[in-house]
Amino acid sequence: MVIVGIDPGLGTTGWAVVTGAAEHPVLAAYGAIHTDPSRDPAERLLVIFERIRELLSIHRPEEVAIEDVFLAKDTRAALALGQARGAAMLGAAVGGMVVRSYSPREIKQSVTGNGRASKEQVAYMVERLLGLSGPPRPADCADAAAIALCHLHRRDAAKVESASH
Amino acid sequence: MVIVGIDPGLGTTGWAVVTGAAEHPVLAAYGAIHTDPSRDPAERLLVIFERIRELLSIHRPEEVAIEDVFLAKDTRAALALGQARGAAMLGAAVGGMVVRSYSPREIKQSVTGNGRASKEQVAYMVERLLGLSGPPRPADCADAAAIALCHLHRRDAAKVESASH
Repeated sequence: MVIVGIDPGLGTTGWAVVTGAAEHPVLAAYGAIHTDPSRDPAERLLVIFERIRELLSIHRPEEVAIEDVFLAKDTRAALALGQARGAAMLGAAVGGMVVRSYSPREIKQSVTGNGRASKEQVAYMVERLLGLSGPPRPADCADAAAIALCHLHRRDAAKVESASH
Repeated sequence: MVIVGIDPGLGTTGWAVVTGAAEHPVLAAYGAIHTDPSRDPAERLLVIFERIRELLSIHRPEEVAIEDVFLAKDTRAALALGQARGAAMLGAAVGGMVVRSYSPREIKQSVTGNGRASKEQVAYMVERLLGLSGPPRPADCADAAAIALCHLHRRDAAKVESASH
């Protein structure tokens, strides 16, 4: 199983490739897509879109998971975030990938057992669950790994559930 | 001169093709892209993205203008709108088109002479400026035509200014 988790943002979009099953997840690759704030928004979205397409064609995941966001500082920030999220989702969708969305609460709950966990707690559990000697940096990459782990976990739970019926 | 104006929205995205110069604009084509609310957000964004690409490849505009939005009912609405706007901008950007953004105030000011004009006033002026027997419907198409007219006007004004220096 290969899962790509994406933590979208107009300035920085974190991504992480997690392989294996929920009991033995492995962080295969991760990185951050940075865009230049001095460029036109359309150009910045194009960078996110193209880089996501690129990394999906390299890592060929079975599924893509992305953070679903409902909260933002203000509507202006929400619009910028929405555009970045749209660009990342489209980068996956044009390649025919199914994109699953998880709320921040679901991700935190799945990774730490607490839906209201702090960012530091999420980073710490990502480090532990993936057997790393430190959390992936920048923080957007740790968040992307948490999203991938959440999907892997939910996926396996769904499989067990359907097998028991 | 061929300009495409886009009024983005996750449910309905209006578009309008306006040709000619600012003194004699002609509405060459218009339409609305509807997406199915029961489908995944990524699929809905893909519909917007693909349809925008399609219509730009058919009408081959020199430039694309899109409404820049700062206000929304709430952050949730802003995120949805941001995603739709991102999909439309990307549809243009992947084809190498330059996308110009205008605020609602600029568009209203340019089309009606009043930056705080009502939606009805904008639709009425779009009808008059384009010599139509009624405003384009749905309202998203009239808004898209207003965006294209605003860009045509601004563009011509910029040309006159640079010629006079």
